[in-house]
Amino acid sequence: MLDALIGRRLANREQGEQKIGWIAGVPAMGLDGLGSSSYGPEAALTILMPLGAASLAWIGWVIAPIVALLAVLYFSYRQTILAYPSNGGAYTVAKENLGPMASLLAAAALMIDYVLNVAVGISAGVGALTSSVPGLQPWTLELCLGILAVVAIANLRGTREAGWLFALPTYLFLLCFLGLIGWGLVQMVASGGHPHPVIAPPPLGHTMEAAGLWLLMHAFASGCTAMTGVEAVSNGVGAFKEPVVRNAHATLTVICVSLGLLLAGIAAVAHGYGLGAMDQTAAAYQSVLSQLAGAVAGRGVIYYVAMASLLAVLCLSANTSFVGFPRICRLVALDDYLPRGFAVADRRLVFSVGVIFLTVTAGGLLVAFGGITDHLIPLFAIGAFLTFTVSQVGMVAHWRQQQGRNAGRLAINALGAVTTFFALLVIGAAKFVEGAWIVVLAVPATIAILLLIRRYYDRLGRGMAATVPFALDDVDRPTVLVAYEERNRMTDRALQFAMTLSPDVLAVHLLRLSGPEQEEEIARLHDAFERDIAQPVAARGLTPPRLVQIPAPYREIEGPVLELVERIDEATPGRAVAILIPELALNHWWERLLHGRRAQRLRAALVAHAGPRLMIITSPWRRGLTP
Amino acid sequence: MLDALIGRRLANREQGEQKIGWIAGVPAMGLDGLGSSSYGPEAALTILMPLGAASLAWIGWVIAPIVALLAVLYFSYRQTILAYPSNGGAYTVAKENLGPMASLLAAAALMIDYVLNVAVGISAGVGALTSSVPGLQPWTLELCLGILAVVAIANLRGTREAGWLFALPTYLFLLCFLGLIGWGLVQMVASGGHPHPVIAPPPLGHTMEAAGLWLLMHAFASGCTAMTGVEAVSNGVGAFKEPVVRNAHATLTVICVSLGLLLAGIAAVAHGYGLGAMDQTAAAYQSVLSQLAGAVAGRGVIYYVAMASLLAVLCLSANTSFVGFPRICRLVALDDYLPRGFAVADRRLVFSVGVIFLTVTAGGLLVAFGGITDHLIPLFAIGAFLTFTVSQVGMVAHWRQQQGRNAGRLAINALGAVTTFFALLVIGAAKFVEGAWIVVLAVPATIAILLLIRRYYDRLGRGMAATVPFALDDVDRPTVLVAYEERNRMTDRALQFAMTLSPDVLAVHLLRLSGPEQEEEIARLHDAFERDIAQPVAARGLTPPRLVQIPAPYREIEGPVLELVERIDEATPGRAVAILIPELALNHWWERLLHGRRAQRLRAALVAHAGPRLMIITSPWRRGLTP
Repeated sequence: MLDALIGRRLANREQGEQKIGWIAGVPAMGLDGLGSSSYGPEAALTILMPLGAASLAWIGWVIAPIVALLAVLYFSYRQTILAYPSNGGAYTVAKENLGPMASLLAAAALMIDYVLNVAVGISAGVGALTSSVPGLQPWTLELCLGILAVVAIANLRGTREAGWLFALPTYLFLLCFLGLIGWGLVQMVASGGHPHPVIAPPPLGHTMEAAGLWLLMHAFASGCTAMTGVEAVSNGVGAFKEPVVRNAHATLTVICVSLGLLLAGIAAVAHGYGLGAMDQTAAAYQSVLSQLAGAVAGRGVIYYVAMASLLAVLCLSANTSFVGFPRICRLVALDDYLPRGFAVADRRLVFSVGVIFLTVTAGGLLVAFGGITDHLIPLFAIGAFLTFTVSQVGMVAHWRQQQGRNAGRLAINALGAVTTFFALLVIGAAKFVEGAWIVVLAVPATIAILLLIRRYYDRLGRGMAATVPFALDDVDRPTVLVAYEERNRMTDRALQFAMTLSPDVLAVHLLRLSGPEQEEEIARLHDAFERDIAQPVAARGLTPPRLVQIPAPYREIEGPVLELVERIDEATPGRAVAILIPELALNHWWERLLHGRRAQRLRAALVAHAGPRLMIITSPWRRGLTP
Repeated sequence: MLDALIGRRLANREQGEQKIGWIAGVPAMGLDGLGSSSYGPEAALTILMPLGAASLAWIGWVIAPIVALLAVLYFSYRQTILAYPSNGGAYTVAKENLGPMASLLAAAALMIDYVLNVAVGISAGVGALTSSVPGLQPWTLELCLGILAVVAIANLRGTREAGWLFALPTYLFLLCFLGLIGWGLVQMVASGGHPHPVIAPPPLGHTMEAAGLWLLMHAFASGCTAMTGVEAVSNGVGAFKEPVVRNAHATLTVICVSLGLLLAGIAAVAHGYGLGAMDQTAAAYQSVLSQLAGAVAGRGVIYYVAMASLLAVLCLSANTSFVGFPRICRLVALDDYLPRGFAVADRRLVFSVGVIFLTVTAGGLLVAFGGITDHLIPLFAIGAFLTFTVSQVGMVAHWRQQQGRNAGRLAINALGAVTTFFALLVIGAAKFVEGAWIVVLAVPATIAILLLIRRYYDRLGRGMAATVPFALDDVDRPTVLVAYEERNRMTDRALQFAMTLSPDVLAVHLLRLSGPEQEEEIARLHDAFERDIAQPVAARGLTPPRLVQIPAPYREIEGPVLELVERIDEATPGRAVAILIPELALNHWWERLLHGRRAQRLRAALVAHAGPRLMIITSPWRRGLTP
């Protein structure tokens, strides 16, 4: 069943076939960045709404710095990819250039960012869907979880095979909206700056206030959410096939140029056609992109195709996180800051622990917020710009340590660091009350957990390190105890195994009855044991096993057995003790209902309370085999 | 925490202190029977409703046979208790006198009956509660499950300590209603047959039809639900303390006499005061007992106390099943028809598997019907009368086999068998469409499952029986494989253990890397092993362990290890192979998140696919111990 759902297992040598080129790279890593072009400008225009018609005059001044920042980041990340062709995420850059604490800061910011991205991306997409088809509104949460499941399973199968699922909407989205924007610009030029919209956009509101610096900074901060996702390529360089750096650069270029064209184009067309943001809670609400498409091309086929591709891009933008999150978790786990399960590739060469962890966390967020996560959007940009800043500072430190003439490269990354840090401050200040304080709390909490995990592994490693030479104090054969309920083939084999290990074998029987019936039971078992087992063995000249019968006043076996082991330990110090527990191999799942877990409970109790010279032997018995 | 919720564990010798006398026996086993006095007559009157005022004339004729049947059952069960002073349930009586198939019939009927009783009793009580306090109506299911949980926990603690919880409502109920009935009868006599009701009962409806035989039989069948629960005492004789038979007889007498007085008294008072059943779905619905209490004593304190005690009795009537069900399951399990877990007393000397199974099944029924189980009431009487009939027939067979003059005793049980069988036919015919067909299906299905379970255990026993003499073909020391990831204290100890067992020790290492790095890894590990382990051992004159490094192309260890074991088996046939797996003992629950389950998975795979000469050794390692 697992094969049907997720696919056949893959050998290590197939790993090369799972890597991708730039054409598949753009959808795999760019959905987040490209999709944020839909809510970035809209968020900025929403802040500018009180300016009324004057918002059109200012939108350019807000978008332009964002596009410039994007350009700076583009050139900075080109260099990062070049310097770190296996993985150039902020984590690695910080770890190698700034030290462990900075790397944990980057890791925490990235991980939180990825989880938020999944939750917000999916819910934004579903929210857009339910505003087109209001009948689906009551199923918001179910739709969100359903899409989450689809994306999770696609990722458990491995990126390569699910590639087409993401490529189609991505390239369709780019085609539609770059086309719409281009046609809109043509119309604007052709009509001398006053194009005639096919469907008139709603009128803008009255001017309530004048544009102030605080308002513009706030709009800039909201618009910066358009840049989340740009770091995905440098995080995931390890996914590309040869030539790795060229493919990664090509992917980054396509994503950044497209995003820049989209942002600038949206601003220009909005200015030209007079589009503004609308109140999301009012009736007849239309998003900015919806107004744009309607104004440029009307409500024809193109409109619905474009909106559908937008919906798909938003919903699937979660996929960028599903590619990035397991990889960052793997890097962090390899440094012992996360449980080791995150670093292991599963049967499909996917880091499935990371995928599942992300699914559960994002799913929890969706359930907690009922699939409506408008409150989380402000938190977005904080984490992303924190990551940008740490990455850029790390690259500056990198170029300083490198030999050779890197002044130009250093300057680019320095500019990036300064600008992103400034943007981070602006965003933090503007959004603090709205929700940024949550990130301010979550990042240190995550770092604390990572440090605790590392401390655990360090202690464990120190405790287990073989500091003393390999010593053999005692090679005496151990005393072997055999859990003996009654004579049957299973216990016969257990005793046979025991006798290959040592001449000192004790069969341990737990007395069930009490009172006078107990005397009878003891005598009967003793006689049967002597006759069936001890005498045949002695006749062969070997030391026969001895039967020990112990009372169990509380009806459980663990206590009496542990006591017996202690007494043997005191009597023969330095000698090992082995406890042999017969276990029936079960052929069907329903057999578990018909058998207790006494063997497992006894073993668990022995493991938990074992002295240093105790070993526990399982003697499995499979039915149908002829020994 | 378990101690706080359920109590400290009890030793076998404390078993005597857990037994009860007749005063505690009446509530423990009589709640079902006494509580059914509330819905039995009401159900009969409901059937008679179309007769209008004429129903009063016929109610006596319907209740009288029921009371007579009760008397017959009383004397019959007195004899059963006498003949079977350890347990005289229908199961044992049938098994010893009629054979296994009859006993399974009785067992299935009893088990289904107990589950239905729990579900219906609790929901009937909650239903009465929500008709008194309509605001609780939306919480019906939650109230049902909550009460189920309370009764279940009280039973997990053991009957004795929870006795007062059941005794108070039982004796209060008896006091109130026998008192009300008595006072009503006094008023009827004093007023010459026309008593003046304190609160006038609602008027009876018009006469719609004349009384026919079918209608009267149907009313009789519904009224028979008043007799469910009478068998509880003979089923649970094992719970009484010395003198066992006297206590059991006293309990049975109190229960039957009280039930008989209640049934006859309700009929008489209903006749005298003109009380009839009302439409349950109509507004201002009042139960018959509510009308009775109102008519005799008005709506004062007595009324509310009486109704409260009735509610408690109904809800707690489930407890009778919680005493009986685990005991019948234990008997059936001791004969291998149920999983053995049902036959084991837990830390509180309670048969907790049975309690939990009953809780889950009844809970499932409650959830499936939303806490409203009116449809199940008709199924009740079928199972109960089937049990009665089987029990009585068994007793007839018992007396026939006994020596001595038992003609009188045989006649009593024969009369009981004939009458209950006749009642069974009437109930089956009357209720078949309403739901008795469910029982007709469920009983054979249950019997089939019991037979399948018995067949499984029989086959298992045959397969495991030691039919061949104890043989020792081979006492050569086994080949020991040690799972070797890296050198640390844990693997040092594992190797030391291995060397006490055999001179042929192989340390098995799984190669993680591939390609050119693999060559490096192999060489490095080999050199370290030679230097740290093999040479010191050889220097002492012992056979050193050898390091085997195997590739794992699918990254899992089970496949390569099983292959290695097969090759060793072929090379050295007849010799045992032991695989030693080091396991770290975890001190806290959260450590499970930080460690994989590789040791457990490997052991599970080995147990499932082991050849006949394989044993699996766990070498536990606890931190903090000095070896």
